[in-house]
Amino acid sequence: MRRSKYLLNTLKETPKEAVVISHQLMLRTCMIKQLASGIYTYMPFAVRSIRKIERIIRQELDRVGCIELLMPSVQPADLWNESGRWKNYGKELLRMKDRKENEFCYGPTHEEVVTDVVRRELRSYKELPLNLYQIQTKFRDEVRPRFGLMRGREFIMKDAYSFDVDEETCDASYWLMYEAYKRIFSRCGLNFRPVEADSGLIGGDYTHEFHVLANSGEDEILSCNQCDYAANVERCEVRQPAAFSGPELDKPRRVATPDAKTIEEVSNLLGVQPSQCVKALLYKTENEPVLAFIRGDRTLNETALRNALGVPELELLNEGDAREVGLVPGFVGPINAPDGLSLWVDPEVLAIEASVVGANAPDAHFTHVHPSHFANYQVTSLRQAFAGDPCPRCDEGVLASWRGIEVGQVFKLKTKYSESMNASYLDEQGHSKPMVMGCYGIGVTRTMAAAIEQNHDDAGIIWPVQIAPFHVTLLSLDVGSDEVDGAAETVYQALTDRGVEVLYDDTKGRPGFKFKDADLLGIPIQLVFGKRSLNQGLVDLKMRGTGEKRSVALAECVDETIAALRQQGWEHH
Amino acid sequence: MRRSKYLLNTLKETPKEAVVISHQLMLRTCMIKQLASGIYTYMPFAVRSIRKIERIIRQELDRVGCIELLMPSVQPADLWNESGRWKNYGKELLRMKDRKENEFCYGPTHEEVVTDVVRRELRSYKELPLNLYQIQTKFRDEVRPRFGLMRGREFIMKDAYSFDVDEETCDASYWLMYEAYKRIFSRCGLNFRPVEADSGLIGGDYTHEFHVLANSGEDEILSCNQCDYAANVERCEVRQPAAFSGPELDKPRRVATPDAKTIEEVSNLLGVQPSQCVKALLYKTENEPVLAFIRGDRTLNETALRNALGVPELELLNEGDAREVGLVPGFVGPINAPDGLSLWVDPEVLAIEASVVGANAPDAHFTHVHPSHFANYQVTSLRQAFAGDPCPRCDEGVLASWRGIEVGQVFKLKTKYSESMNASYLDEQGHSKPMVMGCYGIGVTRTMAAAIEQNHDDAGIIWPVQIAPFHVTLLSLDVGSDEVDGAAETVYQALTDRGVEVLYDDTKGRPGFKFKDADLLGIPIQLVFGKRSLNQGLVDLKMRGTGEKRSVALAECVDETIAALRQQGWEHH
Repeated sequence: MRRSKYLLNTLKETPKEAVVISHQLMLRTCMIKQLASGIYTYMPFAVRSIRKIERIIRQELDRVGCIELLMPSVQPADLWNESGRWKNYGKELLRMKDRKENEFCYGPTHEEVVTDVVRRELRSYKELPLNLYQIQTKFRDEVRPRFGLMRGREFIMKDAYSFDVDEETCDASYWLMYEAYKRIFSRCGLNFRPVEADSGLIGGDYTHEFHVLANSGEDEILSCNQCDYAANVERCEVRQPAAFSGPELDKPRRVATPDAKTIEEVSNLLGVQPSQCVKALLYKTENEPVLAFIRGDRTLNETALRNALGVPELELLNEGDAREVGLVPGFVGPINAPDGLSLWVDPEVLAIEASVVGANAPDAHFTHVHPSHFANYQVTSLRQAFAGDPCPRCDEGVLASWRGIEVGQVFKLKTKYSESMNASYLDEQGHSKPMVMGCYGIGVTRTMAAAIEQNHDDAGIIWPVQIAPFHVTLLSLDVGSDEVDGAAETVYQALTDRGVEVLYDDTKGRPGFKFKDADLLGIPIQLVFGKRSLNQGLVDLKMRGTGEKRSVALAECVDETIAALRQQGWEHH
Repeated sequence: MRRSKYLLNTLKETPKEAVVISHQLMLRTCMIKQLASGIYTYMPFAVRSIRKIERIIRQELDRVGCIELLMPSVQPADLWNESGRWKNYGKELLRMKDRKENEFCYGPTHEEVVTDVVRRELRSYKELPLNLYQIQTKFRDEVRPRFGLMRGREFIMKDAYSFDVDEETCDASYWLMYEAYKRIFSRCGLNFRPVEADSGLIGGDYTHEFHVLANSGEDEILSCNQCDYAANVERCEVRQPAAFSGPELDKPRRVATPDAKTIEEVSNLLGVQPSQCVKALLYKTENEPVLAFIRGDRTLNETALRNALGVPELELLNEGDAREVGLVPGFVGPINAPDGLSLWVDPEVLAIEASVVGANAPDAHFTHVHPSHFANYQVTSLRQAFAGDPCPRCDEGVLASWRGIEVGQVFKLKTKYSESMNASYLDEQGHSKPMVMGCYGIGVTRTMAAAIEQNHDDAGIIWPVQIAPFHVTLLSLDVGSDEVDGAAETVYQALTDRGVEVLYDDTKGRPGFKFKDADLLGIPIQLVFGKRSLNQGLVDLKMRGTGEKRSVALAECVDETIAALRQQGWEHH
């Protein structure tokens, strides 16, 4: 592609409206143009990358037997009423009426439609398993669209839905997709982790999110430096110590701790480590107050507590409510707690030989508390894992912390939709059973944004070659010189003939501007054609990623370029 | 693809709701499932064909420098107010409000959005010409969605928009696209014609529709059997004879023709040919009554008359109105016509040496009318062309008539949108000028439907190999036999390895059913594996299109199949 005939006007300045780096760089490189809040035109430079991501997705899903179809974006309300989501989905669902006043929505997801297709099409266990996917534009009317393509309203998504006879084969479908996703993100050239995630209450046994690692990621994930284990922090397991089983040394001693309410205040006052103190956290569910105890130096994992209680929501108990149930805020502990409270204790707390706990009385704590002094409690893992924790799975590993951007998720839906929408099959005995479903999403445009969040520097984007809009950019520093034009043209044609996608900057402009512009665009390899070098038969080759520059003989620059592309993982189709 | 793992349940019976053949066959071959009126899921067998059409379109548009982008489907009302179409588009525009009560529509076309992108992006004549395209789902809320994908509400379209500095370069852009369209439909394996079409009043100098020829087509088109000329019948030019220039033989003779009003009645009564009579047609525009005269054996082309008058609408004049302006219905002629009427005469009429015309008096006609007797008229081509007419362009050709399905259109928009939306550029002298636009559409899903309308027989679809969902289908007649399974499997792998897309029917079923099913699906080549043939080392190869069948040696069937595919125009990518 000749730059002079292309639509790619870069910006020197960062537009003020953009706060995250991918948004800034996409605006500066003419990848997106906002049409309305959260609604963007994907400009030519972006579309090239999107198509490559889509191609990789298609190839890998086809490989595992997932079958492409394309469902409508405009969906009738009837179906959404069947699943109950017409009411429950809320304002994120963009609703409309057609000329006959029938109600429709712009599909934000397709569980209803695909379940309808399958229930009308399939009858027998012999036709299962089946896994269907599509790549499609979706719309979610976000409250606060922001961060460019990271949280837009109209976006491109790959969604897939598997249908199985039972949980076991559903698991097989799930893990096939899990492996396909790993190959997809690898082939996109991204540094990513599949992480165990919380599936919430509706969820199945497990769900994995696929995170692209980037400092700007919204999510914290922890991963082992030795084995494959990785999890969203809220889901990350903790390797727990055994409870302290030595003899009780003494009875708890009650000590006065006037005004010492926080762990810091108590440990300072008593001259003990925070890790010896027990932190009490006061919550309430819809039905009851809950006390959670963790070690003083730890952070509570609210998701873990919620899951232990089996409730969808938890609220912190305010001081007034706490007093009402007989608690003394700042001095709450596991001994002499008021009746009727649910007490949950993290195993680490029970590993402390002599701990410090609130005395459930004003300005008082107990010290020398032995695990056996705790009464009427349940034990469950409650603390958040953190970087440096030992891996919960392998014996050698230590967890490291990353920021991640969720670009994909695999999820066991089980029979949520097949039951409400009556999608059933006949088993070998002729009994009707609900199909067991899984669903699998990849944010296509989000993946492109995440790739930029992960791969950039101060000068601009650094595209992974696999999803780069172009593989190589030719910079002509002396447009109009017969010698330079001729050489650049020859190399342009030769690379193109060998399947390399080239952006040929044939515009007039100062070298300094061209170099900056090329760095901003982030095409993996830059080939620079200037009179001075060409007089010596040389062309400058720069790797955008490493910044490495070298002069190569004009006659060899095509082969050198292709070798360098291959080294970066370029696959020629 | 193994049929046992594919989603492709064919129907023996034709569903009652389908009246056109493509709709019937798409339902029977599990290509589409209706979700709501005019809204369909494209099932896997259809998606494969759609992707191939899209691929051909992309390749050919990229080749002529057309650049792909992707604009939003959800478009703000503001832009449509600028162009005036928010009001004018009517109920076909699917409108909606987002959570903030802002008005949007689901884009049925993208002139507004693309003009907005370009006006914000471009400044100078140096950046022109520019031609942008996208392939996208669109929605038009048709009053009467029908005929399956032929007139759906949600459909896939390729739309492109060119921007030029002036009409001359716009013409160049137009013809580039015209040629690209020819290559696109050729590569889709379709028998088609680009035909001159009427651009209406907003139109530019010309517009072409691309029609797939099919008996079921809604449009009549005429095309030369010698040269490239083809036109929609309403736009088709007519080769006109010179006016009769011989001497006047006599004065018109007034003859009584009581109750003889039609051409048939008059010619019978007077014993002359209808071609010697002159037919008068009475119309009115908003402003005036109009008389049009054509030869008695011809049909008026209303579009030609409307264009000659420069009006968007014409209405037939009813008898009452005709009498009011002094006309005598049934006896209207060009001599002694009442004052204040606009008279238009087709050249053929003036080529008659002695014609018969109405006398503008009850029960009377003139005979022996010489062209010089006509008064106060204008000459313009008014009659419809028909099959058998000489070609208006070449000397040898004769027009043939076809039915066509419009699948694409190229159109000069000129400055309609660039003026109303202020999309201008600075010319070399620094003057601001509106860009000159063209627009270019291809109905992707409609093309697939038209392909079926054109290529089918009583047994089912006959796919052109270039857009066939699969190239070859393997039919195993003895599933479970080691010999047959082994041979079929080997050929399946060998063909797949060579880039041939194979549907392998590995299901158990009666041979008769399998043959019918394969004919219905219409995959170009059928390879039949049965015990009896295999014992002789043979496989049966059937060409779906011609029905030709032959036995080929198992060892050669891969090469033979590939040769047959190539002969049909298969291009391996």
